[in-house]
Amino acid sequence: MKKKKVVLASGTFDLLHYGHVKYLEEAKKIGGKNAELIVIVARDSTVKKRKGRRPVMPEDQRRSLVEALKVVDEAILGCEDFDMIKVVEKTKPDIIAVGYDQSDIEREVRKAVAERGIPIQVVKIGRFGKEGLNSSSKIKRKIISRLGGKRA
Amino acid sequence: MKKKKVVLASGTFDLLHYGHVKYLEEAKKIGGKNAELIVIVARDSTVKKRKGRRPVMPEDQRRSLVEALKVVDEAILGCEDFDMIKVVEKTKPDIIAVGYDQSDIEREVRKAVAERGIPIQVVKIGRFGKEGLNSSSKIKRKIISRLGGKRA
Repeated sequence: MKKKKVVLASGTFDLLHYGHVKYLEEAKKIGGKNAELIVIVARDSTVKKRKGRRPVMPEDQRRSLVEALKVVDEAILGCEDFDMIKVVEKTKPDIIAVGYDQSDIEREVRKAVAERGIPIQVVKIGRFGKEGLNSSSKIKRKIISRLGGKRA
Repeated sequence: MKKKKVVLASGTFDLLHYGHVKYLEEAKKIGGKNAELIVIVARDSTVKKRKGRRPVMPEDQRRSLVEALKVVDEAILGCEDFDMIKVVEKTKPDIIAVGYDQSDIEREVRKAVAERGIPIQVVKIGRFGKEGLNSSSKIKRKIISRLGGKRA
């Protein structure tokens, strides 16, 4: 029997929306039938370091919510210093799926994989829809523009 | 073999958070082993009528996200005029689980069930945790207070 493929996806998943689910479903699909999807959820400290501020939702709640999705087999918190090789060694994926807005991560992953000659396929997933509330930033902007001066 | 129980839960599920998942898990648990959980997701128009404004996330995205949760067997949009009896006739639940903040709905459901002598158990689910980001309103307030004047 062919070994099932492990797909690794990652993200912050602050304010979970349907675009996240579509990204994860597309990622899992690349692994074929019976693929296992492991999701790395970024630590609060990593997000603070990369984006200058912590996410709205704390890391343990973001992780639990991602793991509560049907498409996800396991959700784990990332390494404090986002050492991609550590994560790869731990989860041993066949495929790493990066999101449309994860160019930094894609670069780091491709570099790490090439340097060590690890046989991992790196795949970029397209954006779900061109418009609508398909990013956490857009959702935040909508909340602020609608409710900024009022009681939420 | 004993018939599996159908549990009906409902809500708006605007800005999905882990408190929602806990409410749904508790609701399903009441139905015992193999219970089926059907979730009614409130229409945008119903929320507008009840709370004076539409949710941040549109109804089709809120429904899809709720149905993407492991604990949920089926998520359906409510009736435009929130006629509880219509929903009950359609889904034929054994149990209706109402959330800690759904006193209006609890009253309507209990009244409808009593008036028609329908053998449905109505159960109120407690709040998940007393503090933290366990309500959509709290999350919106946090976003506004942190990012109100800045680029989201």
